[in-house]
Amino acid sequence: MKNYRITLQYDGTKYRGWQSQKNTEKTIQGKLEMVLESLVHKKVEVIGSGRTDAGVHAYGQVANFQMDTELSTEELLQYLNRYLPEDIAVLEVQEAPERFHSRYHAIRKTYRYRIHNDAIPNVFERKYVYVYEKPLDLLRMRKAVEYLIGTHDFSAFCGNRNRKKSKVRTIYSIILTRETNGEIRIDYTGDGFLHNMVRIMTGTLIEVGNGTREPEEIKEILKSKDRSNAGYTAPAQGLTLMQVNYDE
Amino acid sequence: MKNYRITLQYDGTKYRGWQSQKNTEKTIQGKLEMVLESLVHKKVEVIGSGRTDAGVHAYGQVANFQMDTELSTEELLQYLNRYLPEDIAVLEVQEAPERFHSRYHAIRKTYRYRIHNDAIPNVFERKYVYVYEKPLDLLRMRKAVEYLIGTHDFSAFCGNRNRKKSKVRTIYSIILTRETNGEIRIDYTGDGFLHNMVRIMTGTLIEVGNGTREPEEIKEILKSKDRSNAGYTAPAQGLTLMQVNYDE
Repeated sequence: MKNYRITLQYDGTKYRGWQSQKNTEKTIQGKLEMVLESLVHKKVEVIGSGRTDAGVHAYGQVANFQMDTELSTEELLQYLNRYLPEDIAVLEVQEAPERFHSRYHAIRKTYRYRIHNDAIPNVFERKYVYVYEKPLDLLRMRKAVEYLIGTHDFSAFCGNRNRKKSKVRTIYSIILTRETNGEIRIDYTGDGFLHNMVRIMTGTLIEVGNGTREPEEIKEILKSKDRSNAGYTAPAQGLTLMQVNYDE
Repeated sequence: MKNYRITLQYDGTKYRGWQSQKNTEKTIQGKLEMVLESLVHKKVEVIGSGRTDAGVHAYGQVANFQMDTELSTEELLQYLNRYLPEDIAVLEVQEAPERFHSRYHAIRKTYRYRIHNDAIPNVFERKYVYVYEKPLDLLRMRKAVEYLIGTHDFSAFCGNRNRKKSKVRTIYSIILTRETNGEIRIDYTGDGFLHNMVRIMTGTLIEVGNGTREPEEIKEILKSKDRSNAGYTAPAQGLTLMQVNYDE
């Protein structure tokens, strides 16, 4: 069987995330599998680079699946875009080496969190931003970010209590910018992220930006390995998986 | 009574347009009037610079209304954004001279028509573009545009058969660009536009771009003053009213 690698975008607003035990109909993975199964008339398992939460968007998610078809990659791209709903689009289809696995082989991921930090709503981008109107001090937030960058045990920033798996991750960069339209963007790049990790880091950075916490507290929070010491989980709708990188 | 001038944005997807005889609940004007009436407990008439069609969006629509309130313009701005639905936002509230009329005094308007000219869908902008996948020759379209610019009787490009009112309008510029994401933008600036005029010009330009018509035909179409000689009416969802200018 061939191993296909695809790059895709989706507006996560209406979905229960990439994957869900309960209702596969309302997941991105479920939609992809349904369209592929309609083509080859057998079960196809689509593996994503990571399981985006309900409501999280993707600008450059990567997935792969084993399948046989007579279609060329160009025809398969067209087929997928014809039958997928309008909030999911496949940007690229490639044939990948047999052993390529979109999750195991990902070496770097970038997530963007968008905060609409202005009293005047953004009508056109409203589904992709988190509205937070109170003033945020970017200098304070940038100080806090310095404590997050690097290799740490991120247990305190993890929404999942499973204690068996390693919670050590490396963050390569966190870039904060204020756009002209009143939007604050936080771009996180790392070797991988734990469940809810970007959203908990964002909630904590917001609490630093609004003056509730001091930037230096991040150090203690990390050390405690206790989720209850970190800030709130920022809402899913502000989060977008921007890109996934592989060692090519 | 004071005369307020507001600038607003809206995603027109869910609305029957700026105004509608039948169902004022589902119009932009209706939503604005409802919120203002909840504030002052009497009827308020909101006048728009023009009546955008059902499904047309606005990035910089201008409107005005006569009303008395104790609120400052800043407070009125906040009140409106608090109670308007999330697909309508007021960007600015100003006190205007008593005789200011957003429709009569508009001297220039700019509309943008967005064509998504690519086989791969644009997930995030899908509600604001018209998907047209076949190749379009921009050089041919730019030639056709030359015949539209200037002062003409645009009867052939008008969706309304009312013969009493003058159909003479002046188009100052039409700018066609192809963006890197496969989108073609057509920006129309003129002293005013007839009913459906931008959408019919766009449909006709698409027919020139795909080779169905010659650019020179525009001259004959204008001369005929007959709607049936022009091209189809491009869908509302690709159209956005970008700005309205006044002689300040």
